[in-house]
Amino acid sequence: MRGSQDCINIGLLGCGTIGSGVYHLIQKNYSELTEAAGKPLKVKRILVKDPYEPRPFEVDREIMVTDPGQVISDESIDIFVEVMGGIQPALSLALDIISSGRHLVTANKEIIANHGRELMAKAAQTGSHVRFEAAVGGGIPLIRPLEESLGGDNILKVMGIVNGTTNYILSKMSSEGSAYDQALAEAQRLGFAESDPTADVEGFDAASKLAILCSILFKRGGTPREIYREGILSVRPEDLENARELGFVVKLLAIAVRENDLISARVHPTMIPDSHPLASVNGNFNAIFVVGESVGELMFYGQGAGSLPTATAVLGDVVNVARNLGRPPISTRTYWLRDASIKPIGDTVTRFYMVLRVIDKPGVLARIAGVFGDNNVSLESVVQKGIGDSAQIILITHEVIESNFMKAKNGLEKLDVVLEIPSVIRVESGSESKSQNA
Amino acid sequence: MRGSQDCINIGLLGCGTIGSGVYHLIQKNYSELTEAAGKPLKVKRILVKDPYEPRPFEVDREIMVTDPGQVISDESIDIFVEVMGGIQPALSLALDIISSGRHLVTANKEIIANHGRELMAKAAQTGSHVRFEAAVGGGIPLIRPLEESLGGDNILKVMGIVNGTTNYILSKMSSEGSAYDQALAEAQRLGFAESDPTADVEGFDAASKLAILCSILFKRGGTPREIYREGILSVRPEDLENARELGFVVKLLAIAVRENDLISARVHPTMIPDSHPLASVNGNFNAIFVVGESVGELMFYGQGAGSLPTATAVLGDVVNVARNLGRPPISTRTYWLRDASIKPIGDTVTRFYMVLRVIDKPGVLARIAGVFGDNNVSLESVVQKGIGDSAQIILITHEVIESNFMKAKNGLEKLDVVLEIPSVIRVESGSESKSQNA
Repeated sequence: MRGSQDCINIGLLGCGTIGSGVYHLIQKNYSELTEAAGKPLKVKRILVKDPYEPRPFEVDREIMVTDPGQVISDESIDIFVEVMGGIQPALSLALDIISSGRHLVTANKEIIANHGRELMAKAAQTGSHVRFEAAVGGGIPLIRPLEESLGGDNILKVMGIVNGTTNYILSKMSSEGSAYDQALAEAQRLGFAESDPTADVEGFDAASKLAILCSILFKRGGTPREIYREGILSVRPEDLENARELGFVVKLLAIAVRENDLISARVHPTMIPDSHPLASVNGNFNAIFVVGESVGELMFYGQGAGSLPTATAVLGDVVNVARNLGRPPISTRTYWLRDASIKPIGDTVTRFYMVLRVIDKPGVLARIAGVFGDNNVSLESVVQKGIGDSAQIILITHEVIESNFMKAKNGLEKLDVVLEIPSVIRVESGSESKSQNA
Repeated sequence: MRGSQDCINIGLLGCGTIGSGVYHLIQKNYSELTEAAGKPLKVKRILVKDPYEPRPFEVDREIMVTDPGQVISDESIDIFVEVMGGIQPALSLALDIISSGRHLVTANKEIIANHGRELMAKAAQTGSHVRFEAAVGGGIPLIRPLEESLGGDNILKVMGIVNGTTNYILSKMSSEGSAYDQALAEAQRLGFAESDPTADVEGFDAASKLAILCSILFKRGGTPREIYREGILSVRPEDLENARELGFVVKLLAIAVRENDLISARVHPTMIPDSHPLASVNGNFNAIFVVGESVGELMFYGQGAGSLPTATAVLGDVVNVARNLGRPPISTRTYWLRDASIKPIGDTVTRFYMVLRVIDKPGVLARIAGVFGDNNVSLESVVQKGIGDSAQIILITHEVIESNFMKAKNGLEKLDVVLEIPSVIRVESGSESKSQNA
């Protein structure tokens, strides 16, 4: 019976920023969507908490229900669109839909990142279509190209600016010298940051998205909990200034590198050369940089959030599922059931930027260099800034094993000439040729 | 019978740079491709001119044939991969394949751009899968995302760096102050430019790619002949220097803008603000910047040419067709049969950069400004550089109707105080918000 009507019936689960955008675009782009999907899309029922809540776009209240059962049990619905966010009740509803062999489009990074394995295993049994383009990179067409167009390549590395809030804050701090608090307040005023910004500024959001990217690109399951994560709270305006002087910019990057059978996956503030394609991605934009063994460097850039960009990605998925109703899914993503072997953060090989506040007297540099040497950390550049009480040393290491660097840092903290180590930021090279040949 | 074997049989038409890359990757990434396609890919026959020609990768000569009929008539072949380039015999072979309801993956921008209508009409009748990801942007996943993920959005504008040769030359001229000839010679030495560079430097290659993008994005047929085209030969190192001082960079852009039912489509050197995402796309990289009404700004970046990047895109298509063997194509692209209404170049609204060599005497600027004013061209900035014999005026206009600007230019050429107009380059704004609200 499903899919045989003269339109595609949509069940919308959630009707906030994204959901009301989806509803709005279905009305507004009726003819484009009908041509793309082959039949008109029709929102049949909408699950909401409160029909009278204010929404960015006008939505027909007549089709709103507050009981999930009234949507899920509607046999005429062809495609469920889950845009509630959060783990529950979204996960239970998603499992219900998939278990009964029906089709799901979701923008929910949390259920895919944390419960992808469960969802994909179930979908492989029932033949459900499960699509989640909007879960990473908002409106950027990303998941489908990575999954389908690069399926035959061997992906070596991904580096992504996948959180618009932190990118806005860092861009603002960098371009205007604003303090973190000030930039955050501005982001909140513009609607780019939540009133509780923890998930964004502590890197939880980016880690969820990286877990999804890792699964898609490296064909292994994995969860955000296995990903090393460091937020942007420790980044100071002075570091952004120092970075600029050294020819770098600082971005919160989600990085994953395949090294033989291991995957190194981490989210942290990162210095990248100002000539790198990611360096000029500013404001609340997202961009995902991918290196494939054969395809070389790719980057996908666009709006990582926002009602209509995200709703566009959701509708791209809806159109795709609509076109494939009655056909089995192209890929069952059973690779999600394979375990990813995550490399411990201490084994990561990277460069570091470090700032030390020191006592300004002869011999200080020799003692600092000695500690680095004792721990097999070699230095690429060392600059002293300021004199007397404000003396500081700014240095960048060569590529080192992270655990060696951390031992050196511990050693330095014990030196009497070192007053404080106010900043440590990892540095990624711009040249990908090395990883391409690795 | 086809598709029922335990592997997917490929007929490779052409085995040069791209073709031998395709062959190489099918051997090298056997397991990844088998997982992606659902069955192993096997190259059954290869059409070549000369089996003994040198190739970038080793290819089995046993399966090479020089008679097209021996490939086309092989009933066991599931997917034909056409990587010969040029119009004939590629077009006839493609039509043969599609007419018999068999499936085609091609990297050939010329047959798609110039004969897309014929090919798509035939494919709509027979149910052939026709894929051409590699025809624009080489390895960048572009056509499929634009076609499938953005099918429901209303695309307003595309600006692309779609020719790596000219981008390499302009980047080199800009970063090192090289003359055009010197940069071209270097590009030829590195294999980024042909010994006859006409198709690239005169913008023919970019116009073909823009015609394809226009069809995909605006859902209308059109050919490169309808596109205004200007190459990079007139761009001088001084212009790149002036651009930098004014906060711009110069790129050969393929631009198409939808304005109600008209499409403005053109290829020409363009000044864009140095903060624009396209401005930092250097060397032989390609990038396509798209503005959708709902999705906002998107950019896709990567290698626009080269054996393995392009072969990766071809294989992405092969995998997609392999997965869909026995199913009708998702879209029949019948929109290609609709006529595009191309706006005459004279009606384009854009800004202009102009350099005038003038006689250095009082009142010159007033006379020049007078000619602009008489033709409804208003000026945004005017700078005089040099004195005496080397006096020149460098100006940028506000947005004007192109035909008005050209009338002003004719008038200026007749002024006795104007010795020469060595350069005119169009200027595109970085702010897309206007076109988004238009």
